[in-house]
Amino acid sequence: MIKVGIVGGTGYTGVELLRILVQHEKVELVTITSRNEAGLPVASLFSNLRGRVDLVFSEPDKAGLEKCDVVFFATPNGIAMKQAPDLLNAGVRIIDLAADFRISDVEVWEKWYGMKHACPDLIAQAVYGLPEVNRVEIRTARLVANPGCYPTAVQLGFLPLIELRVVDSRSLIADVKSGVSGAGRKAEVHTLFAESSDNFKAYGVQGHRHLPEIQKQLELVADGSVGLVFVPHLIPLVRGIHATLYGKLSKEVDVQMIFEKRYQNEPFIDVMPSGSHPETRSVRGGNTCRIAVHRPLGGDVVVVLSVIDNLVKGAAGQAVQNMNLMFGLPEKTGLDQVPLLP
Amino acid sequence: MIKVGIVGGTGYTGVELLRILVQHEKVELVTITSRNEAGLPVASLFSNLRGRVDLVFSEPDKAGLEKCDVVFFATPNGIAMKQAPDLLNAGVRIIDLAADFRISDVEVWEKWYGMKHACPDLIAQAVYGLPEVNRVEIRTARLVANPGCYPTAVQLGFLPLIELRVVDSRSLIADVKSGVSGAGRKAEVHTLFAESSDNFKAYGVQGHRHLPEIQKQLELVADGSVGLVFVPHLIPLVRGIHATLYGKLSKEVDVQMIFEKRYQNEPFIDVMPSGSHPETRSVRGGNTCRIAVHRPLGGDVVVVLSVIDNLVKGAAGQAVQNMNLMFGLPEKTGLDQVPLLP
Amino acid sequence: MIKVGIVGGTGYTGVELLRILVQHEKVELVTITSRNEAGLPVASLFSNLRGRVDLVFSEPDKAGLEKCDVVFFATPNGIAMKQAPDLLNAGVRIIDLAADFRISDVEVWEKWYGMKHACPDLIAQAVYGLPEVNRVEIRTARLVANPGCYPTAVQLGFLPLIELRVVDSRSLIADVKSGVSGAGRKAEVHTLFAESSDNFKAYGVQGHRHLPEIQKQLELVADGSVGLVFVPHLIPLVRGIHATLYGKLSKEVDVQMIFEKRYQNEPFIDVMPSGSHPETRSVRGGNTCRIAVHRPLGGDVVVVLSVIDNLVKGAAGQAVQNMNLMFGLPEKTGLDQVPLLP
Amino acid sequence: MIKVGIVGGTGYTGVELLRILVQHEKVELVTITSRNEAGLPVASLFSNLRGRVDLVFSEPDKAGLEKCDVVFFATPNGIAMKQAPDLLNAGVRIIDLAADFRISDVEVWEKWYGMKHACPDLIAQAVYGLPEVNRVEIRTARLVANPGCYPTAVQLGFLPLIELRVVDSRSLIADVKSGVSGAGRKAEVHTLFAESSDNFKAYGVQGHRHLPEIQKQLELVADGSVGLVFVPHLIPLVRGIHATLYGKLSKEVDVQMIFEKRYQNEPFIDVMPSGSHPETRSVRGGNTCRIAVHRPLGGDVVVVLSVIDNLVKGAAGQAVQNMNLMFGLPEKTGLDQVPLLP
Repeated sequence: MIKVGIVGGTGYTGVELLRILVQHEKVELVTITSRNEAGLPVASLFSNLRGRVDLVFSEPDKAGLEKCDVVFFATPNGIAMKQAPDLLNAGVRIIDLAADFRISDVEVWEKWYGMKHACPDLIAQAVYGLPEVNRVEIRTARLVANPGCYPTAVQLGFLPLIELRVVDSRSLIADVKSGVSGAGRKAEVHTLFAESSDNFKAYGVQGHRHLPEIQKQLELVADGSVGLVFVPHLIPLVRGIHATLYGKLSKEVDVQMIFEKRYQNEPFIDVMPSGSHPETRSVRGGNTCRIAVHRPLGGDVVVVLSVIDNLVKGAAGQAVQNMNLMFGLPEKTGLDQVPLLP
Repeated sequence: MIKVGIVGGTGYTGVELLRILVQHEKVELVTITSRNEAGLPVASLFSNLRGRVDLVFSEPDKAGLEKCDVVFFATPNGIAMKQAPDLLNAGVRIIDLAADFRISDVEVWEKWYGMKHACPDLIAQAVYGLPEVNRVEIRTARLVANPGCYPTAVQLGFLPLIELRVVDSRSLIADVKSGVSGAGRKAEVHTLFAESSDNFKAYGVQGHRHLPEIQKQLELVADGSVGLVFVPHLIPLVRGIHATLYGKLSKEVDVQMIFEKRYQNEPFIDVMPSGSHPETRSVRGGNTCRIAVHRPLGGDVVVVLSVIDNLVKGAAGQAVQNMNLMFGLPEKTGLDQVPLLP
Repeated sequence: MIKVGIVGGTGYTGVELLRILVQHEKVELVTITSRNEAGLPVASLFSNLRGRVDLVFSEPDKAGLEKCDVVFFATPNGIAMKQAPDLLNAGVRIIDLAADFRISDVEVWEKWYGMKHACPDLIAQAVYGLPEVNRVEIRTARLVANPGCYPTAVQLGFLPLIELRVVDSRSLIADVKSGVSGAGRKAEVHTLFAESSDNFKAYGVQGHRHLPEIQKQLELVADGSVGLVFVPHLIPLVRGIHATLYGKLSKEVDVQMIFEKRYQNEPFIDVMPSGSHPETRSVRGGNTCRIAVHRPLGGDVVVVLSVIDNLVKGAAGQAVQNMNLMFGLPEKTGLDQVPLLP
Repeated sequence: MIKVGIVGGTGYTGVELLRILVQHEKVELVTITSRNEAGLPVASLFSNLRGRVDLVFSEPDKAGLEKCDVVFFATPNGIAMKQAPDLLNAGVRIIDLAADFRISDVEVWEKWYGMKHACPDLIAQAVYGLPEVNRVEIRTARLVANPGCYPTAVQLGFLPLIELRVVDSRSLIADVKSGVSGAGRKAEVHTLFAESSDNFKAYGVQGHRHLPEIQKQLELVADGSVGLVFVPHLIPLVRGIHATLYGKLSKEVDVQMIFEKRYQNEPFIDVMPSGSHPETRSVRGGNTCRIAVHRPLGGDVVVVLSVIDNLVKGAAGQAVQNMNLMFGLPEKTGLDQVPLLP
């Protein structure tokens, strides 16, 4: 059994990790920490876990994290980078669901995240945890930077086109939409029900932290510079990301075939039949990314529709997929729940 | 023109007051205060008011409230009671949309609201602003306590039965449901979209502040003690209260006729035909209370369904209705918007 | 492996049965029928099942249902009663998720359901499939009438009080609220998004088909007549029922203890700590019924809050629980998914 | 007073027309027709109109439409074209809220709408009712083709850029999102609450009827061919369209100033300050289109965000705006409701 610890389990990625891990046959949940909720049973905060999780939140310094095989950080940005060095030294492997190790260029990271990085030397060791790209490196990684939710949906949609250099990578557009759980479980006015319900808006059009992450990762694939306009929107629903991606074809190709071939062996990517429109609810609670490819009116613009559950393939599920890889388990272990529809 | 000031206009009752008053032909909006947002144009906080309201939030002490004819308090509980004495002395009339003057028994008030009352001597002067009961007193009131949202829906549903003593007033049940805007525009976890959406729950079953308010007002009508079980619930919608009220008939009567007769001259009460089921959306944005009365399977339990928009008839609209009465205007002035459906 | 057939799998109980059964380790899905969709792959109608279910809808008469060990009817009312005799004669056991066998008095059934019963002689053989009451009978049943969604939530909330005769069973009130999926996957105006969203209303106050079902079952428990007022409402959410139940205590008892004791060995009933307010989302996708008991202000009215997922414990999950009992499996087999929150 | 008739008032544009017209000081509502609901009081179908509209639906042939000054067609496509000739001959002016006269090229129309046009000779007479472009022609029009909802939001967002030829008009992208009321009040499975709620998807990516309408109108403005990719999506909210528009600047310009200048005298266009993100709820129930313009990271892609209420500026409100123009009234008459927020 893999001994697992979770740091910061009071947010949505925390409860989602618990939902998945408690049903994972090879995992022993050892400890979960929260400075604010120390002493509180986890199930009294998240009533869906009543009868299933009997852990109590621990003070971070008494949690015994160093005895775990792997520790997940389901924390705000800036926490993992402080605790990572000690845990790694103790031989613990780390999967960070926050952004601390997602961007390899420290200056870029510090600019977008507005803080000094606490352990810049570790960044180079971190493996970017998108299994569809870095499966091999993840297997042996000691420190995995779990991708952001938007970056997962966008990269999986653009990857086949960029790898084969069949779109103009200097003028990509990602019009993305996210459910409100993506904003986390923080008390803020703008994500109140009475603000977000029966409403739709864009935000962060001038620049969003996920843009440099996506851009840099796509550039690694493109082996050249990538121009991307990234416009996020807030959908009045709880879970789900829908990325609508636009690129201009630079050569005549069968885009449907390109996607089917690229993802034919991927356990969590579902390339839908030509003409399909994936729905966010079709992946609600599941680790799948469903993708459909279109060329409207047969023109040279390719439109890729890519949906994920932001809390699963966009966070906790992908983290467990990474853990499975790191510990030599079949990749789907504990990740086979059928999405909930309706 | 009536010179109007608003204290504390950054919440939902504040924006709703502005929406109504800016369209009110006899009102001049003079000032609106907010300690936190002083200097900010109101329309930059509430974009529906762009091009319609050009007021800027003022510091409370520089707002010139004493020059107004009437001041609305759209504040948290405990604010109006501190400022009321000075304003009343300056000849300003007051309509408090919070709870400071709703309960005449100071001890009861202090117990439920958990604070010391700042001007208990003024409570006796306050008129409870439910026009359907206190129309005459409101006309000459200097200080009006605008009823709570639940109390409005519940009282209007029970009134005809209690006035005629045709139900057992010792065993009433009010199963009430409110949209999330009733919780106000405060940053809190439990009213986040991701907490309240696609979810339904009861709350405060052990005791809710609106219970003593309703009970006392019904006792004034019943001229005797009233036993009421009051169970509030949170509905995943923005605006609307639905009260489902249960009473046991103590004599054989035509309940439909009782309601129609009681409310035949009321401008804002709509008694629907027998067999109807009022919907909250049918009053969205309007000052109407729609009511339907049932006797399931012809039995001796009467079921009253009563719906209001919690921000209009349950708050700002009723406040303006009270202002109209206080200043001798036709009661419907500025309150004739047709509700928005769908 | 249990060979399972499903008749009529194009509605919400159908897709939910498939979601559960495909993850059930002892089940082999053999056939699923739909007259309208014959020839269509199931997963093309319900995209959450892509990659998980490769069945194709069959014509009912070519489906080979008679070779199954058990057949679920996820059909409109009035279908199962026509096909049941032949299947039972062929040795197939039946679980009907519709209402055909829920009410033992044929006249009452025909009055409420507005049709002639096709096989009144079979009704007496049918076992009412509420395991918490009829576990023993279900084990050997050939024909199980799976309870309605409202009846499940209401009965589980009232049962402990009625069995012990501690409430006045002649004046019970059930104020119940259901998500819109309870209305099924039928094209109708009143359940359109633009009609049901941001809206709340009661319906069927004059009489609802679930009333006689609940009343008769409670009378069996009470061993006497039961008076129940039943008022259903439509909540703008997809899954979930919240029953708010009111009864008058006829003797002084510890209601919390009564519930804890009654349900201590029930695998799917969670009696929450005193003072709790169960949320519908805490059971979303799970087969659990969560219950909390209150006595507001310590009075003699007991308020029971009972929540279920209408598609799981209120339909497909309970049906599988019954199947597990009928085939001697541990009751929780295939029903251990953790509910999805948020 | 303008004598107004409405053909087909049982849909959402019908009830919205009624809501607006009943509050319009210069309008006398004369008749409203519905073949299916003839004899039914309008207010019994739309309870928000109780006490405000006492019209009864008439049989189309007995409605006396020929005595009206203007008739609105709030009908499915293909109805207005059949009745228009007779009414025009009778001297009645017509505003068609459906698509019958929106596209001047009959062949294109017949291809996209899948029917034979009944009066192709009238098409040339029809004026496309977008006041911001055709104000002068609308004043004297006998037959106005009220624009589609998407086309209104998209054109108002692209117009200033195309008129000044500062974007590459051959590669425009319109990623648009609509609330579910845009699908109308028809009983269909895909717009049921349980299908559309907590869900998001694109649709019609291969081609949508609003594409040729937008393209042709923009070509008139561009005086040249326009290349547009148009991808509509369904948002789980009732009212609102959000268009996110992308164009590549062909010269260095101050886009904010271009928009402010173009719309400075438009009564219903609100160009928001630089950096803004308009919300659909800020126009809920109002006839305003709010627009914000961005150049992400200062690049050469201009992103325009444009929001309207699909039932108001996207349908009934714009129709009344057109009527005001046609009858020489101030353009804002009857259209000054403040949007409802929250």
